[in-house]
Amino acid sequence: MISNYQLQITIVRGLWLEKQHLSLRKNLPLPTPPHGEALIKIIRAGICNTDVELLRGYYPYAGVLGHEFVGVVESDGEWKGKRVVGEINARCGKCEACLHKNRNHCEHRTVLGIQDRNGVFAEYTTLPYENLHEVPHNVSEDEAVFTEPLAAALQIPQQVQIHPEDRVVLIGDGKLGLLCAQVVALSGCDLTVIGKHENKLEILKRRGIKTAIWNPKSPTSGNVEDVDSQKADVAIEVTGSPGGFEMARGYLRGGGRLVLKSTYAGKLTLDISSIVVDEITIIGSRCGPFKAALDLLARKLIDVGSFVHARYTLDDAVTAMEKAQEAGVLKVLLDVS
Amino acid sequence: MISNYQLQITIVRGLWLEKQHLSLRKNLPLPTPPHGEALIKIIRAGICNTDVELLRGYYPYAGVLGHEFVGVVESDGEWKGKRVVGEINARCGKCEACLHKNRNHCEHRTVLGIQDRNGVFAEYTTLPYENLHEVPHNVSEDEAVFTEPLAAALQIPQQVQIHPEDRVVLIGDGKLGLLCAQVVALSGCDLTVIGKHENKLEILKRRGIKTAIWNPKSPTSGNVEDVDSQKADVAIEVTGSPGGFEMARGYLRGGGRLVLKSTYAGKLTLDISSIVVDEITIIGSRCGPFKAALDLLARKLIDVGSFVHARYTLDDAVTAMEKAQEAGVLKVLLDVS
Repeated sequence: MISNYQLQITIVRGLWLEKQHLSLRKNLPLPTPPHGEALIKIIRAGICNTDVELLRGYYPYAGVLGHEFVGVVESDGEWKGKRVVGEINARCGKCEACLHKNRNHCEHRTVLGIQDRNGVFAEYTTLPYENLHEVPHNVSEDEAVFTEPLAAALQIPQQVQIHPEDRVVLIGDGKLGLLCAQVVALSGCDLTVIGKHENKLEILKRRGIKTAIWNPKSPTSGNVEDVDSQKADVAIEVTGSPGGFEMARGYLRGGGRLVLKSTYAGKLTLDISSIVVDEITIIGSRCGPFKAALDLLARKLIDVGSFVHARYTLDDAVTAMEKAQEAGVLKVLLDVS
Repeated sequence: MISNYQLQITIVRGLWLEKQHLSLRKNLPLPTPPHGEALIKIIRAGICNTDVELLRGYYPYAGVLGHEFVGVVESDGEWKGKRVVGEINARCGKCEACLHKNRNHCEHRTVLGIQDRNGVFAEYTTLPYENLHEVPHNVSEDEAVFTEPLAAALQIPQQVQIHPEDRVVLIGDGKLGLLCAQVVALSGCDLTVIGKHENKLEILKRRGIKTAIWNPKSPTSGNVEDVDSQKADVAIEVTGSPGGFEMARGYLRGGGRLVLKSTYAGKLTLDISSIVVDEITIIGSRCGPFKAALDLLARKLIDVGSFVHARYTLDDAVTAMEKAQEAGVLKVLLDVS
C-alpha cells in the first residue's frame, strides 16, 4: 500500500555564499518565519560593497547573501500585500543593548545576509515585523532598494552635528560615498567630495556639489588640487580602503571630526598621540534611520536613479556579483520577481 | 681710557633639555618679555609625564623644560605682584584657528616648555598676559601647580557629555588619571577606575570612587575582576602606553565613546572596521579650561595634596626628573623660589 501522505516542501532559489565561494542554489527550502517575523517575497535587491567584502572574507558568513531589498509581505495579517523594505539588524530584545533602545548594537543580533540570518538574494526572506517599513507609493522599486544604504548615509547627521558653516571634505565616490555626499550637502555646509572617477562625481556636480579629482601625479598634498589640508571641520571617509583614513585625517583642522563609514578586512596603523594633541574625534558610523531615508526618497531629494549601472535576474546573480566588482561600476540590481 | 659703560646681563638658572639630554644651566639670560607678554618669577613647578616623554624623544624639543607652574608677575602694570598660573599654548592671533576662537589649535602656536617656547623649570619665564589666570587666595602654591593638569582633566566634560546614568571605566592611575577620575566622578556617573597601584587607587577610594586592580594573572577578560567587558558607555584611556587603547576598547558597549588622554611616542595598530561596526566614537583630548580648574581647587573638590611624593630645589632638578620616572611615584615638585 502506498501512503497517500505526501511531504510537500516548496523549494526556492537563492545566491549562497560559503567559504568565499558563491553558488546559485535552486533547492533551498522556503523559509518558515518564526514567531514575530514576516515571510517576504523579494521583488528587487541591490548589491552592496559589503557583499563584495563578505565574498573576500571580511567576515566568515555562510548563507544567502544580500541585505538591500524591496519586497512584498506574504504572511497573513495587516502587513499582507504591503511593499516593504527592512532594517537589517534583528535583535534579541533581552540584552542590555536592546533594553536600552540601542537595538542596532544588540549583543545577540543577527544581520540580514551578513551574520547568522539568510539574506535577500533569493526568492524569499524573513524578517521581524518590527524591522519593516512600508514603501510610500511614489517611491519606485528601483529607488526603494537604496533605502538601506541611504539610511546608513543618514546615520552621519544622526551622530554628528554638521553645521551650515562647516567645511566638510568627503573622500570616496562609490555608491555609499555618493549617498553620503548628497545627504551631507542637504545641511548647506561647504562640502567638497574627492573621488577618482569623473563619471561618478558627475552625478554630484549635476546637483551643484563641489568635487575634486584625486590625482596620484598631483604635486599637491593629498594628491588633490584646490582642497586645503588641515582646514576641514569634518572629514568623512567612505573609500572602503585603509588609505582613506590618513587622507581624511590630513584634511582636518585641530579639533576636527573624522567620520568613518568604510568597513574592510585589514588593520590600520595610526599615530594616537597626534589624535590626542590635535583633539580629533573619530566617529564610527554604520546603520541608520530607515524612516528618514524613505522620506527623502519620497521627496525626491536624493538622486539614486543615476547609480544603476546594470541589472540581472536572480539566475544570473553570480555574474551580477562579478559585474559589481568591476572598476567604475556603481549599483548592480537583481530583478528577483 | 676704560669705558664706564658696562653691559649688564642678568643670568638665571634653568633645566635645559636638548637631544634627550638634561642639564642645569646657570648662565641663561633673564628672558625679555615680548610685547603683550609678562615676565613671571617662578615659585613652584610640577613635573608632568609629558616632560618625561619629551626627555625620551616624544617630540624634538630643545629649551627650558616644564609647563606646570605657579609664579608671580614681575612686569609693571595691573598684573604686577599677582600670583598666577598660565595656559601653555601661546597663539599667533592671526591664523584661521585663532580667528575661529580655536586658540589651543593655533597653527603657529608655541607651547610652554614643549614647543618653541622656554618653559618653567627656571627662575623666570614669559607668557602672554591673555594666558594668565590669577590664583585665588585660598589656593596654595602646591595646589596651584595642579591647575594645568586639572584643566586637562576638565577637557573631558568639555568635549564629552557624561550622563549621571553612564557607566564609565577609566584606565590608568597615574597623576593625570587620578585627576581625570576625580573630575569624572563629580558627574555622579557609575565610575570604575582601573589601575596597577594600590597606593594610588587608595587616594580615589578615600573619596568614595570605585577602583579595580589590573592583575596580569587574573583569568578575567582584560585581567580585571568585577568589571564587565563591552558594557561601558564611556571608557577613558589615561595609561600613557599603547596597550591602554585595546583595553579601554574592550570595556565599551556598541555605540560607546572612548576618550584618549595619553600621549606617547609610537604608533598603534587597530581594527578600523570594528570601530565602524560597533559605532565607537574616539575622542582625542588635550588641554582644558583653567578657570574651571582654579574654581574646583578653590572649592576643595579635588584632592591634589595626596599626589605630592617628593620635592626638590631647582638646583636638584636633574635628580627630580629621575625621581619622577620611578615606578609608583606621583607628583614631584620643584621649589624654585
